[in-house]
Amino acid sequence: MAGIDNKAKMSIFHVILTGGVGSRLWPLSRKSRPKQYLNLFADFSLFELAVKRNQRFANKLIVVGNKDNHHLSEESLRKLGVEDNLNIIEATPRNTAPAIAFAAFAADPEDILIVTPADHIIKEGAAYDKAINRAIELASDDAIVTFGVKPTKPETGYGYIEHDLENVISFREKPNRETALEFLNSKKFLWNSGMFCFKAGVFLEEMQKYVPEVFQKSQEAWKKAQNAELEFESSMEIPSISVDYAVMEKSDKIKVVAADFEWSDMGSFEAVYDYLRDQDYPIDQNGNIVIGSQKFTKFIGVENCIFVATNDANLILKRESSQDVKNIYQELENQKSNLID
Amino acid sequence: MAGIDNKAKMSIFHVILTGGVGSRLWPLSRKSRPKQYLNLFADFSLFELAVKRNQRFANKLIVVGNKDNHHLSEESLRKLGVEDNLNIIEATPRNTAPAIAFAAFAADPEDILIVTPADHIIKEGAAYDKAINRAIELASDDAIVTFGVKPTKPETGYGYIEHDLENVISFREKPNRETALEFLNSKKFLWNSGMFCFKAGVFLEEMQKYVPEVFQKSQEAWKKAQNAELEFESSMEIPSISVDYAVMEKSDKIKVVAADFEWSDMGSFEAVYDYLRDQDYPIDQNGNIVIGSQKFTKFIGVENCIFVATNDANLILKRESSQDVKNIYQELENQKSNLID
Repeated sequence: MAGIDNKAKMSIFHVILTGGVGSRLWPLSRKSRPKQYLNLFADFSLFELAVKRNQRFANKLIVVGNKDNHHLSEESLRKLGVEDNLNIIEATPRNTAPAIAFAAFAADPEDILIVTPADHIIKEGAAYDKAINRAIELASDDAIVTFGVKPTKPETGYGYIEHDLENVISFREKPNRETALEFLNSKKFLWNSGMFCFKAGVFLEEMQKYVPEVFQKSQEAWKKAQNAELEFESSMEIPSISVDYAVMEKSDKIKVVAADFEWSDMGSFEAVYDYLRDQDYPIDQNGNIVIGSQKFTKFIGVENCIFVATNDANLILKRESSQDVKNIYQELENQKSNLID
Repeated sequence: MAGIDNKAKMSIFHVILTGGVGSRLWPLSRKSRPKQYLNLFADFSLFELAVKRNQRFANKLIVVGNKDNHHLSEESLRKLGVEDNLNIIEATPRNTAPAIAFAAFAADPEDILIVTPADHIIKEGAAYDKAINRAIELASDDAIVTFGVKPTKPETGYGYIEHDLENVISFREKPNRETALEFLNSKKFLWNSGMFCFKAGVFLEEMQKYVPEVFQKSQEAWKKAQNAELEFESSMEIPSISVDYAVMEKSDKIKVVAADFEWSDMGSFEAVYDYLRDQDYPIDQNGNIVIGSQKFTKFIGVENCIFVATNDANLILKRESSQDVKNIYQELENQKSNLID
């Protein structure tokens, strides 16, 4: 690995954050089967693909999961033959800053962490390798690295990073269509991928500096963890806060690696649709697709529709309305329906 | 039965025409299961409902079917306990004029035939009884009676009959929306229901007068029939022509009974949709409905859609595009697909 050969003592950890359910992918995604564990698009789940993708960069894997999904992660890791990983089991969701802090506490200060979500899809290849290797180089020099993906369309579903080469100028929330188009045309913006790379010690120092309470409560909870399984009461003391807000938007050690790999957060059926459309996935002349059914299906008089079939629920969705799926999920949750279990 | 008590020698036959497949109701409707034999909307099929509806007006039932569906009719009739019916089995479809002629040949000239399609839905009740009884009265006086249904909306899927009381002024093809609205507002038009009533002898005389070749070839084919089963070669000699074109639009014995019963030809999913909407059928706030699946189904971002589920095929259809279903059927037929069998 270029740039790290002279740092023999240093370990590189892949930290995989595997939290949510993916309610915007209901009915595919369920509480018992969050989207990152589904074999939706390949022989491997998104979780498995994320593990495999980073195996050759990292010496060890840390999975930050929770009590509801850690058996799914373990099942996947057995399938992949991964044995010496550390499973951190959260007692309650506290967002990404505490989750990453737990991984950093588990590592030595000089260890480099490559932090990735479990539920994104990324095309492996030279562009990915180049981005990771460059991030490791920067992290070795005590930078906190975020990965920005070069935008290919005026996407309104992602946050953006304004940058000048490897320097971050600003983080931007999800834009409206017009702003997204400006961002795209200016070529000064990258999609915020939610992937990071830094030394464990550097991250914790910055966290202590900018969000001391989050740091302290996370540390206290970590000390009470048994076999990396967090305890509920001390976990509830930790403010729930994202790593972007806690550290990335504040630290002056931040760097961005502008990556050129194909990437999607698969955060909604629109993202899934766009991904599938770019593959050899069947799509009719009016842009309609079927997910989850092998049954002969015809669409008449509708366009850009997604028909999602599962054993106990169907969804017929206009692509542009993909964000509204979470409302259905919410409604079912309020009704305590077993259709989300 | 009012008006016929003084005609003791006369029999009344219900002639049920059970031809087509109902390709515009694919995938519900198949070659092996034409729509009139499906229990779509009740405990009985449309065929069975048509038989039941007319039992108390008629002394006997004549079913004009074909070699592909007569076993389905017989099955239905066993279910209803009907035993002494006559099954006429056509060798090849020749449209409605020859089909009715066969039934008329099977009857005595003075017998009154109530001719109905097998695949319409009609609300039974006083309005229906009144219409049938009036038609029988008129037919007893040698009229050829057609039933016109009072329109309730500017339907473009039906033919219309312009009338002045019981006199027919003209038959009109399916109108465009604008014309349909004119027809509706003028109150001078009725929907052409495809139901008729006349004496067998009167019908055949008019047929001989206006379409002598059709009459002659039908008669020759009927003479060669064995046990009311038509022979292929002689059947192929008969011109394929509708009863409207052959007799109704030409005869000066024509009368129309303006009927006030709820009626639908169930000719397309739009008609099915409208029928179901007027029942207590589940429909979401955007006018979407599910047919054929008990599975929990949600629609997002689409309106007036019909999701039709069967064991081997699904259809997702915008209500307004219902007429296009026949194109899918045609396409599958061209491909010799077993999805229409």
